[in-house]
Amino acid sequence: MIVRKADQVPAAAVEQDGAKGVQMRMLIGPEQGATHFHMRRFDVAPGGHTPHHHHEWEHEVYVLAGQGVAVCPDGEKPLAAGDCVFVPPAREHQFRNTGDQTLTFLCLVPRMD
Amino acid sequence: MIVRKADQVPAAAVEQDGAKGVQMRMLIGPEQGATHFHMRRFDVAPGGHTPHHHHEWEHEVYVLAGQGVAVCPDGEKPLAAGDCVFVPPAREHQFRNTGDQTLTFLCLVPRMD
Repeated sequence: MIVRKADQVPAAAVEQDGAKGVQMRMLIGPEQGATHFHMRRFDVAPGGHTPHHHHEWEHEVYVLAGQGVAVCPDGEKPLAAGDCVFVPPAREHQFRNTGDQTLTFLCLVPRMD
Repeated sequence: MIVRKADQVPAAAVEQDGAKGVQMRMLIGPEQGATHFHMRRFDVAPGGHTPHHHHEWEHEVYVLAGQGVAVCPDGEKPLAAGDCVFVPPAREHQFRNTGDQTLTFLCLVPRMD
């Protein structure tokens, strides 16, 4: 069993096109032996956002802190701590920080190799 | 895209043998269209615990609030908010609330049907 503090996991800037002010930590991934799905934590700075995109895999998201919106084809949905989000495969989406604190959320994805 | 507040998702008592004072919410599961893995939230009352058991699927856990321990074959590991836990398949484990507040954590599992 592996127990570690999320804050102590190294963070890397997300350099993907369309990302602004986003850092990612791989909390539970291939190095921990996860074979079905991976847990990542994202920290989005005030004014920042993830890419507005779509892909073939789903997201399961849990908002830990901050204020933001989930942008989807039918508009924007507000996000706050304690909200969970399911983004189905192939659905356009983006997460934007609309507050003055860091927007922090978990985002889990199926294994992709 | 589905956004919902975890606190508003109905909770059910966990009646499994060895569970004490545990409630579970299925935040993202089959009803939301999740096909690879499911996000559940557990609330363990002070003095409560999940079953001490093992099974063929892994757990990916993120502690949201409270104080507790993860019981594993090599002893007990303390748990607090912001800790993430990977329980590999077939590993004995139990989560115990050792504090005086509710121990709340996400626990994700692969789809099991």
